[in-house]
Amino acid sequence: MSPLHVVILAAGQGSRMKSALPKVLHAVAGRPMLHHVIGTAKQLGAEKIHAVIGHGADQVRSVTAEATVNWVVQSEQLGTGHAVAQVLPDLPDDARVLVLYGDVPLTRRDTLEAMVAGLDDETLGLLTVTLEDPNGYGRIVRDASGNVTSIVEQKDASEAQQAIREVNTGILAVSAKHLKAWLPALSNANAQGEYYLTDIIAMAVQNDLAISVSQPRDPFEVQGVNNRLQLSELERWYQRREAERLMAEGATLADPARIDVRGELTIGNDILIDVNVVFEGKVELGSQVTIGPGCVIRDARIADGTQIKAHSVIEGASIGANAQIGPFARLRPGTDLAADTKVGNFVETKKAIVGEGSKINHLSYVGDAALGRNVNVGAGTITCNYDGVNKFQTVIGDGVFVGSNSSLVAPVTVAADATIGAGSTITRDVADNELAVARGRQRNISGWERPKKTD
Amino acid sequence: MSPLHVVILAAGQGSRMKSALPKVLHAVAGRPMLHHVIGTAKQLGAEKIHAVIGHGADQVRSVTAEATVNWVVQSEQLGTGHAVAQVLPDLPDDARVLVLYGDVPLTRRDTLEAMVAGLDDETLGLLTVTLEDPNGYGRIVRDASGNVTSIVEQKDASEAQQAIREVNTGILAVSAKHLKAWLPALSNANAQGEYYLTDIIAMAVQNDLAISVSQPRDPFEVQGVNNRLQLSELERWYQRREAERLMAEGATLADPARIDVRGELTIGNDILIDVNVVFEGKVELGSQVTIGPGCVIRDARIADGTQIKAHSVIEGASIGANAQIGPFARLRPGTDLAADTKVGNFVETKKAIVGEGSKINHLSYVGDAALGRNVNVGAGTITCNYDGVNKFQTVIGDGVFVGSNSSLVAPVTVAADATIGAGSTITRDVADNELAVARGRQRNISGWERPKKTD
Amino acid sequence: MSPLHVVILAAGQGSRMKSALPKVLHAVAGRPMLHHVIGTAKQLGAEKIHAVIGHGADQVRSVTAEATVNWVVQSEQLGTGHAVAQVLPDLPDDARVLVLYGDVPLTRRDTLEAMVAGLDDETLGLLTVTLEDPNGYGRIVRDASGNVTSIVEQKDASEAQQAIREVNTGILAVSAKHLKAWLPALSNANAQGEYYLTDIIAMAVQNDLAISVSQPRDPFEVQGVNNRLQLSELERWYQRREAERLMAEGATLADPARIDVRGELTIGNDILIDVNVVFEGKVELGSQVTIGPGCVIRDARIADGTQIKAHSVIEGASIGANAQIGPFARLRPGTDLAADTKVGNFVETKKAIVGEGSKINHLSYVGDAALGRNVNVGAGTITCNYDGVNKFQTVIGDGVFVGSNSSLVAPVTVAADATIGAGSTITRDVADNELAVARGRQRNISGWERPKKTD
Repeated sequence: MSPLHVVILAAGQGSRMKSALPKVLHAVAGRPMLHHVIGTAKQLGAEKIHAVIGHGADQVRSVTAEATVNWVVQSEQLGTGHAVAQVLPDLPDDARVLVLYGDVPLTRRDTLEAMVAGLDDETLGLLTVTLEDPNGYGRIVRDASGNVTSIVEQKDASEAQQAIREVNTGILAVSAKHLKAWLPALSNANAQGEYYLTDIIAMAVQNDLAISVSQPRDPFEVQGVNNRLQLSELERWYQRREAERLMAEGATLADPARIDVRGELTIGNDILIDVNVVFEGKVELGSQVTIGPGCVIRDARIADGTQIKAHSVIEGASIGANAQIGPFARLRPGTDLAADTKVGNFVETKKAIVGEGSKINHLSYVGDAALGRNVNVGAGTITCNYDGVNKFQTVIGDGVFVGSNSSLVAPVTVAADATIGAGSTITRDVADNELAVARGRQRNISGWERPKKTD
Repeated sequence: MSPLHVVILAAGQGSRMKSALPKVLHAVAGRPMLHHVIGTAKQLGAEKIHAVIGHGADQVRSVTAEATVNWVVQSEQLGTGHAVAQVLPDLPDDARVLVLYGDVPLTRRDTLEAMVAGLDDETLGLLTVTLEDPNGYGRIVRDASGNVTSIVEQKDASEAQQAIREVNTGILAVSAKHLKAWLPALSNANAQGEYYLTDIIAMAVQNDLAISVSQPRDPFEVQGVNNRLQLSELERWYQRREAERLMAEGATLADPARIDVRGELTIGNDILIDVNVVFEGKVELGSQVTIGPGCVIRDARIADGTQIKAHSVIEGASIGANAQIGPFARLRPGTDLAADTKVGNFVETKKAIVGEGSKINHLSYVGDAALGRNVNVGAGTITCNYDGVNKFQTVIGDGVFVGSNSSLVAPVTVAADATIGAGSTITRDVADNELAVARGRQRNISGWERPKKTD
Repeated sequence: MSPLHVVILAAGQGSRMKSALPKVLHAVAGRPMLHHVIGTAKQLGAEKIHAVIGHGADQVRSVTAEATVNWVVQSEQLGTGHAVAQVLPDLPDDARVLVLYGDVPLTRRDTLEAMVAGLDDETLGLLTVTLEDPNGYGRIVRDASGNVTSIVEQKDASEAQQAIREVNTGILAVSAKHLKAWLPALSNANAQGEYYLTDIIAMAVQNDLAISVSQPRDPFEVQGVNNRLQLSELERWYQRREAERLMAEGATLADPARIDVRGELTIGNDILIDVNVVFEGKVELGSQVTIGPGCVIRDARIADGTQIKAHSVIEGASIGANAQIGPFARLRPGTDLAADTKVGNFVETKKAIVGEGSKINHLSYVGDAALGRNVNVGAGTITCNYDGVNKFQTVIGDGVFVGSNSSLVAPVTVAADATIGAGSTITRDVADNELAVARGRQRNISGWERPKKTD
């Protein structure tokens, strides 16, 4: 089979987006549209991916960490045919060339595979779609045998042609050899003064190539984005597909219309995800994990049987099995919780390694800290890890009991089974089994007069 | 009228659920599907409820706290007819028998009442439904007079029969006498090798029974659950019905598509519920209560005029009239707030009895505590109720002012109108009107050098 | 052009609302329905707005802060014709009179402008709407030339008339001169014994007035509210329109079905709003602002490039450019944050002026405070601004470092570049560059016995 080259057209401005950002960098599911298309091209096993860029070319290139993409700058936007022509020098004659669009992000891999699979030199693969309302699109005209004979644009279509609901998606595949012959022959003698890639269909027919038509399972696969409304429609379709995938894999979703997956979510068995959960980045959920309403989880691993309660915000954390997190827990990067741990409400952790069975149940900040097993951190405990310029670590041994409202001024070590009295500010190390107290003596003063209301 | 016996088929595995949990234990609105069906059977006034179980029988039985259910184990799953046959020994001859399904959870009580109401010995009651797309279901075939003559399965249906949109739901009612005659005569000479309950319709016709057909108001009432997508569809339909009920009773819902009621919610007049509120268990809301966005409320009573602000999580709490709670309040079980109380942001309460007019406005933990009237608890106050093994109580009298960042080490009593200085750790009782202070003396040190950045 | 007088009928009880609140005071998008209608009337440039009130008249008047409205009390509700008749004495003969309804809140300004624009003395302007299901509404009957000849109520409609899908909205405009002639001639000889405004259409036809028909772009514009379900439908339609407006102006919405705008939201370029954000009052967002999921923002200005992270609740605050707020930040009225500030999780601010580059990252309460530039407020810091009766201010100079778990007892000033030791309770002023410490000395006690479990 001849090598597959994918050409992605990504030079457009997208003025209807009303944005300083180049259109193809607008995100669906947290990822620029262009990156979705590049990702699909890679899945197809493309030997080479060529991206034609123009508006915001530097920005597009700089946010795309794909060393393998061949960036081709189209300095003037003279139409899709002109755009593809910029790539001709980089295409070997024997290549099969698939043309995709940076603002059509969600074409399924298998749709494109079916399209390019058996493509030989004398066939042009064309992706069409049948729409309820074809208005505005180029209609696919077929002869009596069903062979495609041409694509007629809206404005040129007869009444009978206007009734055709099968339309052109712009996505096509053909050998480089033919592109090299046809593209230089395109004319811009049209209202827009542009060179249209679509015009090669007529050339293919004229040259007796077979037109092999395929269709996506869903019209959203070939939906382009010209404004934020369309962007939101694709976002929702993507999220609906993700929700259906998760349910098919055995997750219970409280509401498939209220989940957002912006990245890669992998799940174990019998997961339960409540309403309005947002996943970002790479998240792995073990079996029997439950996620409460309103949680936001980014780049995290959560092991079997762990419960994440309402309104927890988790990022860059690893959580062991059968842990209980939240509600209102905030786990920041570097949080590593062992099995059977508890992190409760209004607790923030950061670079915190917490041993099995330890609990930080209420209103605490634990940062740059290593806690052993079965530690109990009382409510209102703060690890004072920052002196204004440097950060220091707090080390807490197994079985330590930290009384409420304590401050642990790092660097400091509290050894195993030590106890910190409530309300203490601990600045020196505490040895095994010691009790450390650092607070003022209580004085009860009678005859004290309450403040009066001032005017 | 002859006694009503309900037979619930609940033995199936539900492999498409991809779950370790038996299918009938998967929950709709927080309650296992089987429990919905048992609940409906009880509402119908069934003399006896028989549940046929098989896959996960022990688990099904153990989570179903219904002493009155007669559990019948079907050791081999040989079809619906076989399942009902297991119950025959337990059915008195004169019983009307209604067959329901553990995975068809949301049939309305009145739909079934209408079906079994006038049922006599010589009538079989059949529940059918008319679907937009009947594909895959057994079609209801009627003669010219409209009488049901048979049910034809999809694969056996002629083209004309395939056009019939009225289909069998599987739900039927007939006298035990007939079941005892017919079920032993069922044949399993079919592709699946199973005994089908549906086949008794033909027997009924043959025996000149009248077939009395009724229909549910809504197809979702007879929708079965075979996978998590269907489970989510029933969940959403249930929630939509609950939203409509609440609006009909005079609640304003900011968005009927964004409320979840998983349990029993009763409301007073002129309630306002903002978006994304989740109710669980038994919740009672008085009149003029407002619930802010994102709240999660479980097993709680909230009296007239109380405002619950955004993102509050409440469980096992009782809240008096005209209280103001949240945002970001966390009330845990045993919280009992009197009228005109305030609990503000980042405050956790647990086993806390709080008198009229008292305020805990910010960043506090109040657990195992009894507060009088008009107490002011300053920001950052912690009741230190736990010494690592035991829990103790904090008692605070009327009119006490607790300064910010105080720790109250229980057991401790602060008597009426006492004042606690900010930043104090209180370990001994404080008498009426006393001022208690327990903190270090302030030293201001000049010429102090700030830490330098280390490398 | 003759002056425009708008008559708003707002006297109805709305018993199906099941509410103590007069129907026209129920809110859409946080604003009473009547206020929407008054607002539209003002946009039309009405010379005078007359509101006919009855049920709950005092309450309606008192919550409507519109000095210019002429309130006319209809003591008995005898029908729409009777209601308009109450206003006749206040209408100049040469006025064009537009009749609107207090429970039809969302008619577009341009729809009504088109209706009253060219209206002369001999034309009656009528707003009609074409419905999928016209059942229950008065049908618009036209003659062969398409001229309106009458409105036929549902119960009086022939079968042919019942098929008419164009129906009366009740909204009409005509000169006061005619109203003064016709309204006294209305009859109440009908089933309800009421005087119907609709009957003047027949009088207009009889008097050879032209009937000028116009239609709204969307049926929701003329949808009235009789129950909470309809209220929720209008709410959702309003919110959908707002979402589309924001997207057209260049905002990316994660989900257009999960945003609520209850007031006036103005936006810069390239805004990103995540799911479930609620805006109330007047909110201004600069360019490149991002709002995380679950935020609630009321009466706030947020400058360019600022990020508001998940679950932040903001009210009455001004936030400078490139600030980072949240998650779980609570900004209360009087919060004024300069550029490049950070307010992190579980932090509450109130009447807090915070200088450029300052940070309050964790678990703090900062109220009645003025902070300079580059201040670092440690975790668990509390400004003790309240002594039980009075509030006092805390002043913190540029570059101050406040150690964690500190209490600042106001009134107190910490001058520039001072340092507060962790765990201190500061009651006296601190001078420039001083270190202030106020905490107990640490004692480590060995041989301490942990508490034992009591029974």
